[in-house]
Amino acid sequence: MRHSKPSAAQLVQGILAQDITALSRAITLVESTNPEHLKKANAIIQQCLPHANTSVRIGITGVPGVGKSTFIETFGTYLTSHGKKVAVLAVDPSSTLSRGSILGDKTRMEDLVKDDNAFIRPSASGTSLGGVARKSRETIILCEAAGFDTILIETVGVGQSETAVHSMVDFFLLLKLAGAGDELQGIKRGIMEMADAIVINKADGDNLKNAKIAKVEFNRALHLYPPKASGWQPKVLLASALQNQGIPEVWKLIGDYLSLAKDTHFFDHNRNEQNKFWLLQTIEDRLKSDFYNNPFIKTELKIQLERIENGETSPFAAAELLLGLK
Amino acid sequence: MRHSKPSAAQLVQGILAQDITALSRAITLVESTNPEHLKKANAIIQQCLPHANTSVRIGITGVPGVGKSTFIETFGTYLTSHGKKVAVLAVDPSSTLSRGSILGDKTRMEDLVKDDNAFIRPSASGTSLGGVARKSRETIILCEAAGFDTILIETVGVGQSETAVHSMVDFFLLLKLAGAGDELQGIKRGIMEMADAIVINKADGDNLKNAKIAKVEFNRALHLYPPKASGWQPKVLLASALQNQGIPEVWKLIGDYLSLAKDTHFFDHNRNEQNKFWLLQTIEDRLKSDFYNNPFIKTELKIQLERIENGETSPFAAAELLLGLK
Repeated sequence: MRHSKPSAAQLVQGILAQDITALSRAITLVESTNPEHLKKANAIIQQCLPHANTSVRIGITGVPGVGKSTFIETFGTYLTSHGKKVAVLAVDPSSTLSRGSILGDKTRMEDLVKDDNAFIRPSASGTSLGGVARKSRETIILCEAAGFDTILIETVGVGQSETAVHSMVDFFLLLKLAGAGDELQGIKRGIMEMADAIVINKADGDNLKNAKIAKVEFNRALHLYPPKASGWQPKVLLASALQNQGIPEVWKLIGDYLSLAKDTHFFDHNRNEQNKFWLLQTIEDRLKSDFYNNPFIKTELKIQLERIENGETSPFAAAELLLGLK
Repeated sequence: MRHSKPSAAQLVQGILAQDITALSRAITLVESTNPEHLKKANAIIQQCLPHANTSVRIGITGVPGVGKSTFIETFGTYLTSHGKKVAVLAVDPSSTLSRGSILGDKTRMEDLVKDDNAFIRPSASGTSLGGVARKSRETIILCEAAGFDTILIETVGVGQSETAVHSMVDFFLLLKLAGAGDELQGIKRGIMEMADAIVINKADGDNLKNAKIAKVEFNRALHLYPPKASGWQPKVLLASALQNQGIPEVWKLIGDYLSLAKDTHFFDHNRNEQNKFWLLQTIEDRLKSDFYNNPFIKTELKIQLERIENGETSPFAAAELLLGLK
């Protein structure tokens, strides 16, 4: 016989008492596809909301091989040793297809995993980025209510998921590698523009010289971008997570940003805008999925796409026809 | 008594006979909000489709003051003097609010206006970019059916309209000015990444030195971007539309691009992708406008936005509630 499941109220109580088991269970409800679980999850979130919104949310991205796990391990350990409570989440829609799930290999974060002031949760699974992102957004709220004051959200360089993470964090950090031409490889369009800081990782040993050159180049490139709404000028830093170098400087930079953003009230303004964005995004995702999952639409869409390809109809005439089937 | 209106068939016949009056009348139908007119417009477009898709479509953008009108006048005149038939369109959703409509002041294009091989049509009016963009897309089809082989589509630097224009052209040209710091002023995020060429205009007289410096800087910046799907490496050119300098070089560059894009079949692939994009975009715009224009939704949306701002509900719970009202 199984133990009776804790109620929503019990889980909320547990979360507010900083009980990790209650937090994990609530996140599992958020990630469930069972409508009953979602209802319960919504009730929990609603009650956690007044206790959330208190942390710093930091997005961390970079291509595979850049050393994200090691960076998060070192950075997270630095933060907990300075009295922070750190939650590490991930947004990785590809993880369902089990192609290289990030955070899947917790052994790369062996110190942080054992750290009582850290909580690590791999990416929710899901077929759509929208779904995965929703779960992460709600998980942030639960973690904040459970007393985590620094949320690190890892994502992998696939363009769309960076945009999703960018729209749920206060500070967006891009990890890069230096090296012969490599410093440019794999940056997806638009991601450099989102970065509040670029950290050139593995800036140690033989790599240091190239890292310094890359720093100059990225600094120059960043200055060519239009100013950010926050008024912040993005910076480039060198670090070696493996050698534990440059980590306090990253945290200091984030602190500088936060001072600026709080002084100018951009911080609150931005969070409010992010909330509005997620409201509209959720609505629009649903409107689209309801439409495109309609079997009549599905069949006719294929036909119309073929007719467009053959120049037999215009995109607008085809759209009219499809909308008429709704 | 008014003359009887020409039928759709008559207008199609006129367009294919390269009759400008028929073309203008058909465009007026496309731009109308009258459902009867739109029905007629759709019939005309359907019949013009087999005769369209034959031109080169070039998007031209740049902030006010960069000299867009003069550039288009000089560039367009160069093209017609080389046997091209040039249609100049604009995408400018702001024009309805009569704040500085582009192409409104045709006197700036006094040669091109009188040129028999040129056709200039100011931006359609409309309250939404989606609507304005749809009209421009359909106008392109009509212009092509009427024998115009080079379509220039002007837009003004407001971010979203660049994205719309970028998704309806083969080649995207960004006009810039050089000068003390000015070369960066006013570039909206993401627009530099879209450009296939940056033309530094007004590169004459005292400006020439600064223009050359800017050229080096932009070239460096462009190289920092990830490669384009077309395989094309964007270039930076100097020009002075007023002094008629650098114009053949711009056309030659576009020719180089077209050779590459046609050799690799990227040209056709891209047009096909653009058509699919516009099909989905039209559908999604309509789904959204149907939803947000619902008076019940309108009222409740305001309430929910306020509750989100006060931390009383989450974006996702609010979305659920609103979607339940559909």
